[in-house]
Amino acid sequence: MSHVERFSVSMNAELLKRFDEHIGRKGYPNRSEAIRDLVRNALVEEQWNRPNEKLAATVTLVYDHHKRELAERLAHIQHHHGGLVVAATHVHLDNDNCLEVVILRGVSEQVRQLAELLIAQKGVKHGRATYTTEGKNLW
Amino acid sequence: MSHVERFSVSMNAELLKRFDEHIGRKGYPNRSEAIRDLVRNALVEEQWNRPNEKLAATVTLVYDHHKRELAERLAHIQHHHGGLVVAATHVHLDNDNCLEVVILRGVSEQVRQLAELLIAQKGVKHGRATYTTEGKNLW
Amino acid sequence: MSHVERFSVSMNAELLKRFDEHIGRKGYPNRSEAIRDLVRNALVEEQWNRPNEKLAATVTLVYDHHKRELAERLAHIQHHHGGLVVAATHVHLDNDNCLEVVILRGVSEQVRQLAELLIAQKGVKHGRATYTTEGKNLW
Amino acid sequence: MSHVERFSVSMNAELLKRFDEHIGRKGYPNRSEAIRDLVRNALVEEQWNRPNEKLAATVTLVYDHHKRELAERLAHIQHHHGGLVVAATHVHLDNDNCLEVVILRGVSEQVRQLAELLIAQKGVKHGRATYTTEGKNLW
Repeated sequence: MSHVERFSVSMNAELLKRFDEHIGRKGYPNRSEAIRDLVRNALVEEQWNRPNEKLAATVTLVYDHHKRELAERLAHIQHHHGGLVVAATHVHLDNDNCLEVVILRGVSEQVRQLAELLIAQKGVKHGRATYTTEGKNLW
Repeated sequence: MSHVERFSVSMNAELLKRFDEHIGRKGYPNRSEAIRDLVRNALVEEQWNRPNEKLAATVTLVYDHHKRELAERLAHIQHHHGGLVVAATHVHLDNDNCLEVVILRGVSEQVRQLAELLIAQKGVKHGRATYTTEGKNLW
Repeated sequence: MSHVERFSVSMNAELLKRFDEHIGRKGYPNRSEAIRDLVRNALVEEQWNRPNEKLAATVTLVYDHHKRELAERLAHIQHHHGGLVVAATHVHLDNDNCLEVVILRGVSEQVRQLAELLIAQKGVKHGRATYTTEGKNLW
Repeated sequence: MSHVERFSVSMNAELLKRFDEHIGRKGYPNRSEAIRDLVRNALVEEQWNRPNEKLAATVTLVYDHHKRELAERLAHIQHHHGGLVVAATHVHLDNDNCLEVVILRGVSEQVRQLAELLIAQKGVKHGRATYTTEGKNLW
């Protein structure tokens, strides 16, 4: 099931040269890995536009932890969606600001809604959701 | 200079199967073309993050043409940046709304600024810039 | 139905200062217009994630017009989706390259599929779809 | 310095109605907070396009932990960029897959390069960087 296949790609020599420079700057070990990444990215992106897919996501939140109610509210929301929240990491950026990453798993619609609810809380300075995959059907 | 090279890509059989289905849905004629598109997209994206590149862009604007001043203002702005504006196409969406596509070419910073100025005009309901390439170094 | 309402927004003085600088760089005439643009953008983005919405889009294609079959193929595809294609503008970038903007209208899924099919054609160097609105429910 | 100002925004009544529905779906407590979020998002986005800004980012990686060399390589890279890496959280998705979130801080160019290097590692199934802020100049 998980054997490796090889196939050949034809590409203009100049385009290939520019691609090689590009993946050098990005730090890829070889062309195959760079191309697999482009392919997997396209697949994950398409997956997130379909309903009812099981997926993972991370929500990055930056906020002022002196607003104590906010930290409590964020914790409260996470606890009330326990089935979706896997873990949370908290980092102190300075005396005032902290960054929190919440890792979510579940059905796409529910994950998206919870991510948006966390970002929407008053006092969150910047919030962004990154949608990824559970990795099961990707090699 | 523009000869074609072939190189091989190794990929897990299941990932390749999913990729084949994906490019089938998108309408690609074969894997090579799909992969070249992913590669060229990555290159154009990187190019737009560098200053002083010569590039092309299209600006899509939707607005109410009854606001006559707006059409005049948009035309005025375009005329005062004649060196950057290549063409504009105007489409009547209904009695009130029209869609205008302005094609720009030039140095990235100037093109971006003009695109943002057009989008910023009062009365523009929706504006979006698409950054592309002059095609010269892409095959 | 289309009267104007006013509501007040509270914002930290420093944040407001940074916002004023930002909209100055972008060329907005005032805060209200900048905020309306942010709001309309969020609405159009949400709309594009719903099925069966009637929408408009532009597809920007850069290709080598010496590949004569390609121009024919692009025209052929457009003619076979006549109900979706409103207009096309063609610009000569240099001796080899041209940029074509195709304006589409219709139900979101069909428009997206046609846009992807045009971009997927062999020989298209760079293609990108911009999804916008018919303007009907935006003010 | 951090006092709150109020200003008024004029908006078509129908647009305001649609915005209120939109922020209801997203879970915002009120218009001011939704608008501040749109404003802060625009500012953070602009900030990331400038060089030499001090910023924070999270990198989300999904990979098969049976590829033991990969976990070691990811750890090795992080240790060699100790000045940029704040923390990493590791989650077991299933017997094979894990999700790791690496939190970075530093000058934009260096952070971006490290994020790309982590994503580029062979065996990473999906990687995505989320660029955010240190929160210092945002309220």
